Amino acid sequence: MNGAESLVRTLVAGGVDVCFANPGTSEMHFVAALDRVEGMRCVLGLFEGVVTGAADGYFRMKGSPASTLLHLGPGLANGLANLHNAKKANSGVVNIVGQHATYHIEYNAPLTSDIEGLARPMSSWVRTSPDAKSVARDGAAAIAAARGAMGAPPQIATLILPADTAWNEADGVAQVPVEEQRQSYSPGAVEHAAKVLRGGEQTLLLITGSAVTEKGLALAAQIAGKTGCKVMGPLASPRMARGRGRFSIERVPYVIELAQAALKGFRHIVLVEANDPVAFFAYPNKPSLLKPEGCEVHRMTESGENSVAALEALASALGAKPADVKPQATVELIKPTGALNHMSIAQAIAMAVPENAIMVDESVTTGRGFFPLTAGAAPHDWIQNLGGSIGYSTPVATGAAIACPDRKVICMVGDGSAMYTLQSLWTQAREGLNVLTIVFANRIYQILRGEFDGVGAGEPGQRALDMLKIDRPALDWVALARGMGVPGRAVTTADEFNKALAEGIAERGPRLIEVQI
Amino acid sequence: MNGAESLVRTLVAGGVDVCFANPGTSEMHFVAALDRVEGMRCVLGLFEGVVTGAADGYFRMKGSPASTLLHLGPGLANGLANLHNAKKANSGVVNIVGQHATYHIEYNAPLTSDIEGLARPMSSWVRTSPDAKSVARDGAAAIAAARGAMGAPPQIATLILPADTAWNEADGVAQVPVEEQRQSYSPGAVEHAAKVLRGGEQTLLLITGSAVTEKGLALAAQIAGKTGCKVMGPLASPRMARGRGRFSIERVPYVIELAQAALKGFRHIVLVEANDPVAFFAYPNKPSLLKPEGCEVHRMTESGENSVAALEALASALGAKPADVKPQATVELIKPTGALNHMSIAQAIAMAVPENAIMVDESVTTGRGFFPLTAGAAPHDWIQNLGGSIGYSTPVATGAAIACPDRKVICMVGDGSAMYTLQSLWTQAREGLNVLTIVFANRIYQILRGEFDGVGAGEPGQRALDMLKIDRPALDWVALARGMGVPGRAVTTADEFNKALAEGIAERGPRLIEVQI
Repeated sequence: MNGAESLVRTLVAGGVDVCFANPGTSEMHFVAALDRVEGMRCVLGLFEGVVTGAADGYFRMKGSPASTLLHLGPGLANGLANLHNAKKANSGVVNIVGQHATYHIEYNAPLTSDIEGLARPMSSWVRTSPDAKSVARDGAAAIAAARGAMGAPPQIATLILPADTAWNEADGVAQVPVEEQRQSYSPGAVEHAAKVLRGGEQTLLLITGSAVTEKGLALAAQIAGKTGCKVMGPLASPRMARGRGRFSIERVPYVIELAQAALKGFRHIVLVEANDPVAFFAYPNKPSLLKPEGCEVHRMTESGENSVAALEALASALGAKPADVKPQATVELIKPTGALNHMSIAQAIAMAVPENAIMVDESVTTGRGFFPLTAGAAPHDWIQNLGGSIGYSTPVATGAAIACPDRKVICMVGDGSAMYTLQSLWTQAREGLNVLTIVFANRIYQILRGEFDGVGAGEPGQRALDMLKIDRPALDWVALARGMGVPGRAVTTADEFNKALAEGIAERGPRLIEVQI
Repeated sequence: MNGAESLVRTLVAGGVDVCFANPGTSEMHFVAALDRVEGMRCVLGLFEGVVTGAADGYFRMKGSPASTLLHLGPGLANGLANLHNAKKANSGVVNIVGQHATYHIEYNAPLTSDIEGLARPMSSWVRTSPDAKSVARDGAAAIAAARGAMGAPPQIATLILPADTAWNEADGVAQVPVEEQRQSYSPGAVEHAAKVLRGGEQTLLLITGSAVTEKGLALAAQIAGKTGCKVMGPLASPRMARGRGRFSIERVPYVIELAQAALKGFRHIVLVEANDPVAFFAYPNKPSLLKPEGCEVHRMTESGENSVAALEALASALGAKPADVKPQATVELIKPTGALNHMSIAQAIAMAVPENAIMVDESVTTGRGFFPLTAGAAPHDWIQNLGGSIGYSTPVATGAAIACPDRKVICMVGDGSAMYTLQSLWTQAREGLNVLTIVFANRIYQILRGEFDGVGAGEPGQRALDMLKIDRPALDWVALARGMGVPGRAVTTADEFNKALAEGIAERGPRLIEVQI
């Protein structure tokens, strides 16, 4: 058994049985091992941003890491932006990067680069295997790191594999180190939170991560009902349980003034895996921290802890019970007619969401109203971008569909973002994934139109506008999808959109709708 | 004048008047300055790999750097692979990356990352401007670094611009430091090369960079005629003058055995900007260095030196004159008919090359015969990839067309490579660029089929083949091009290809031909 085979066997034995890949020469022994090892599903992406984003989406739905397979420094570089997004979402990924044979590196062949240097900014764990006999053990350590051993949150673990460590003789498979019990939570921090909530001052419970599952949200609703505290999520959560029958929470808004208004009056913020809310960007004469003056911030749990157990303990300490839950305002579903605008688009989507759907949200400006309007939709999971690098959604939807083949994935994406990693559509076609991509074609980086103002740059002239508008030429998303084997259709009215949604959700396999607005 | 405007004015004053851009919020003041400053052409790319690759192509044809404009760490990350290729080609680029406002970085907002850490592996010069008053001076220093001051070769200079340094008040424009005379060449190294060549032992003159211009090649031909030495280029050169009437040289082949055969028998290699030839990849039981045992290597010039002047001095020392040039074998142009195969494709292209064309070559396996067969084509420049990261050609063609609006650019690219940065087509349509893209659709990473064998992995089984073949589904390049506003057509016979080439070359503006093989 060579090093590559020892790694593939170690991955499969360690429960990492999906590999998103775009291999090259230095990874051919890993690819060859696929023929000899049962149990590894290898999924090809035609660009590395698809590969790493898919691993992120897989983790978010499965809760355990997939691996990637990338070709040397430039292959890793192409995947870094979506590793950044995955890192910010606390997703675990076993990131495998080929390298030249150890003895070949000094010759500075064309693809030589500082791979460890490239890996570090987006990885929490980086290691280069020194020889074939170390590869299995290093692979097992990478799995442990990606899962989040010893109370650490899941993380990006990058294992660099020189070609000779892949082809030389190895010792065999390695076991993943026995997982330390994930740190549960700090009882002291829960008791402190209970004291704050008992104090009766205006308090915000800011929850995300493992707390925004159906169970965590139900506990938060009891605590809110009992104490009168408000519950919100941060601007973005890796995955949130939402829809009819579930406790619906608002998010801290993106726009600074709206965020400040939403946080106004709170004397305390209790953080449940969330962070002290900060502005997405800095703007002249606006604050970086969004909380009001004098507001105290208390951390109850952080990422990697068991927030559902902590919320249970908190509810128990406060004597909060299911009967304390206050009834929520019902959000009615309305089937829109007439013209397409942000409201009718949101209504159409809310109406169409199928039971148990996975909603991947990169709708940017078009989708700012999607969240409240879908609170009354069929129960679903909602996935957002925590890293801010566009082009995350189509790969994440791809990986989520691999993780959950029985669920419909609906990817909502602006045209500017969708162009970044459009190669995802090909992988969706190849694997027959059940993903409906909805591209909002407003033909402008609309968010930047607002940001231009926001940073105090005034009113854009023609040359500045040319850097924001993508209408010349107009992108034809139906042609782009067809080019990659995905059937698509364009819609210009609410009626057409309703119909396209109904059909796209009823049919299995990848589909694309271009919403022209 | 704010910092951003001081930078844009410094760039224009320093001759950097083209900016390939994909900006975000932190770059809005740079964009706003475009409305106030005359003379900067800003070209939008819908993905950063297009932006950086276009800057590379611009430099190769113009010989002076363009700037880029990228959005924080992830925007830079998306552009790194083509910066890697640019760096290996010794292209100069002024790479401008936005950053959060200096005081905002500590809050770890979503897009926060280690930008300097990301920049270093692919940049030779990295600086973060500390305040608005430093921006112009730092910009001028970046231009000097990108041009290649003080005998250094041109390089990737990355200037990181925190948002507050863009919007705060600056002092004005900075002058680019007076360019030190580029180091000409070392007379001692030329005298040593002359001695080697006079010695009469079998010698290879391995030339690239500034030596493979029409003039440099003509001098090399005289030296070869006079001394009997052989002249070759390395596997890839940033840009080579070729075609009828020019001294045609072979390259060191990619395949190790062929490279060894080509270098067999040489007692000396004289390097003119080239490097001691090394294997592109390592393979079990094959050497990294390609020269024969006992062969001595002598460096005459390195990148950044004036190799034409050095070759003139060498010719003069050897008494080599135009009359010494030996006649070259003529390469006949043949219009192919019948089926499309590697030979007929090469013949069709050789026949079609228009006078003064810029040929961008990422044809990988399909194009291994293009080089010898186009030796008899109309005079042209030939551009290759020195970094080995695929997805270089469509952006480089885009930048070359911006640099040389009066020349036809022909981009020859395999389907696997073309998928990496297909967003280039949109920029070509937007700017009306005179680029004919020829996609060789063999529906497989064909090179890896050979490499699989080469690294000793044997014969691929079905699962391994699935990682190499991209035929399921087949990509429809005509649809993909139409989706981005570029007219395309598919061809399946030599006659169709001849016709499509003739039309695509006669028409102005971007066109695409999908060659189905």
